[in-house]
Amino acid sequence: MQYKYVRKAQYHETDMMGVVHHSNYFRWMVEARIAFTDENGINYTQMEREGISSPIASVQADYLHPARFGDTVEVALSILRYSGAVLEISYEIRDITDSKLLVRASTRQGFIKNGRPVSLKKAMSEWHEKMLNLSQTYSAED
Amino acid sequence: MQYKYVRKAQYHETDMMGVVHHSNYFRWMVEARIAFTDENGINYTQMEREGISSPIASVQADYLHPARFGDTVEVALSILRYSGAVLEISYEIRDITDSKLLVRASTRQGFIKNGRPVSLKKAMSEWHEKMLNLSQTYSAED
Amino acid sequence: MQYKYVRKAQYHETDMMGVVHHSNYFRWMVEARIAFTDENGINYTQMEREGISSPIASVQADYLHPARFGDTVEVALSILRYSGAVLEISYEIRDITDSKLLVRASTRQGFIKNGRPVSLKKAMSEWHEKMLNLSQTYSAED
Amino acid sequence: MQYKYVRKAQYHETDMMGVVHHSNYFRWMVEARIAFTDENGINYTQMEREGISSPIASVQADYLHPARFGDTVEVALSILRYSGAVLEISYEIRDITDSKLLVRASTRQGFIKNGRPVSLKKAMSEWHEKMLNLSQTYSAED
Repeated sequence: MQYKYVRKAQYHETDMMGVVHHSNYFRWMVEARIAFTDENGINYTQMEREGISSPIASVQADYLHPARFGDTVEVALSILRYSGAVLEISYEIRDITDSKLLVRASTRQGFIKNGRPVSLKKAMSEWHEKMLNLSQTYSAED
Repeated sequence: MQYKYVRKAQYHETDMMGVVHHSNYFRWMVEARIAFTDENGINYTQMEREGISSPIASVQADYLHPARFGDTVEVALSILRYSGAVLEISYEIRDITDSKLLVRASTRQGFIKNGRPVSLKKAMSEWHEKMLNLSQTYSAED
Repeated sequence: MQYKYVRKAQYHETDMMGVVHHSNYFRWMVEARIAFTDENGINYTQMEREGISSPIASVQADYLHPARFGDTVEVALSILRYSGAVLEISYEIRDITDSKLLVRASTRQGFIKNGRPVSLKKAMSEWHEKMLNLSQTYSAED
Repeated sequence: MQYKYVRKAQYHETDMMGVVHHSNYFRWMVEARIAFTDENGINYTQMEREGISSPIASVQADYLHPARFGDTVEVALSILRYSGAVLEISYEIRDITDSKLLVRASTRQGFIKNGRPVSLKKAMSEWHEKMLNLSQTYSAED
């Protein structure tokens, strides 16, 4: 199953090529990720209040077709892997009107507390359980 | 006297109108302000380490001509007012090749410590003295 | 009457001060403006296709309180003036949970065709009529 | 050999985690790429004036350490592959003070004319020759 986040491509996200600048898709993925966890009981603000942050360790993206100003797009994400220490997510960004695939991407992120890598399992077992469940419900393999 | 900060208009700062998006000029002013204080012994990172931050309270800008990708621009700033509690700066952004005035703007900022407005005079007298001197050397009235 | 545009403050819109960077509010105003005209039969993409663009000529903003990541905010706009050649809009950005006023701002924009200032009245009389009506319905004076 | 582009990490490029937002490194790579080609006689503005653009087809990045506000960083690039139709570049972003490797990345881009993929060899043989030479001088294998 995929979690779907919908938003519009904004004017200020385009560049002089007339399309959305390729760096901005990573911001859409941030938004999708945060909406996804937030709706599932893992609030990122609260997480940072607990001293845990989750920086991006690596990203990868293939740009198949550009999004244009005014397009309504859907960022569909699913979980490739969750180990407690590492979360890998895959994304398909589509134009919602014709379902055309625009961008295929993935991100990998860890968890950090007091400046050091930490397993969410130890740092916050309640969220770990939730994330485990999510990684099954939204498994990229299904 | 004006302090001059030079940089290039970048591709990712343009929008589909083919020119620099109007929100980005405020980022250039941030850069100019920080370079200005930094070169004059007021380091912003250190300031935040002392628990002092300096949020923008108001801005104003007139856009006369657009900057385009590849243009080398100069952000010339001078100090309109410095009172210890408030710093007002004016800016002229010019195309460096023909000195054409692109943007005229001003910003006003205060100082905050522990979430409350504070006078730099009390919070950090050494920087206050430096800023007083700068406000004379770089007075907008000269 | 005010037109209201609602969105969330995003993580990538914050800076190291922990709040939304002041330049980003102008991007929210862009979004609000475009949603407003779009919902009222004036489509910006179509406008640019007709060779008409509407660059910002001046802006002004007072920042009263910062928006933070995760806040749901409302950009409420009303029309200060519309003359065919010039459109002035005022904005109030509020936190939607407690209606606290965060930013008060205004923008002025003109219309351009073939690189020259033009009156929308001449360039596109149908949109001019619509805009005239909107300027009464959403007058800032009411 | 690597081409080196130096710039400062800016305040407005940080997020509330206190470090540069991961999407921004791709903008630094844009800047480095454009400075590189520009200094070597391939001007991007002129290229777009000829109707040729060079959209990014895919990107990949590993984030090893974050850049912080005020850091002076070096984007060192070299050419992985240039075929006329495709240009692949690799990047190492380092903190200039201690040479610490912050980000390792690569990008792949094509060339487009009149909305269709084109070989630079056909579309602009002069630039093709230059690019061929650059791909040897700045080969990632050396």
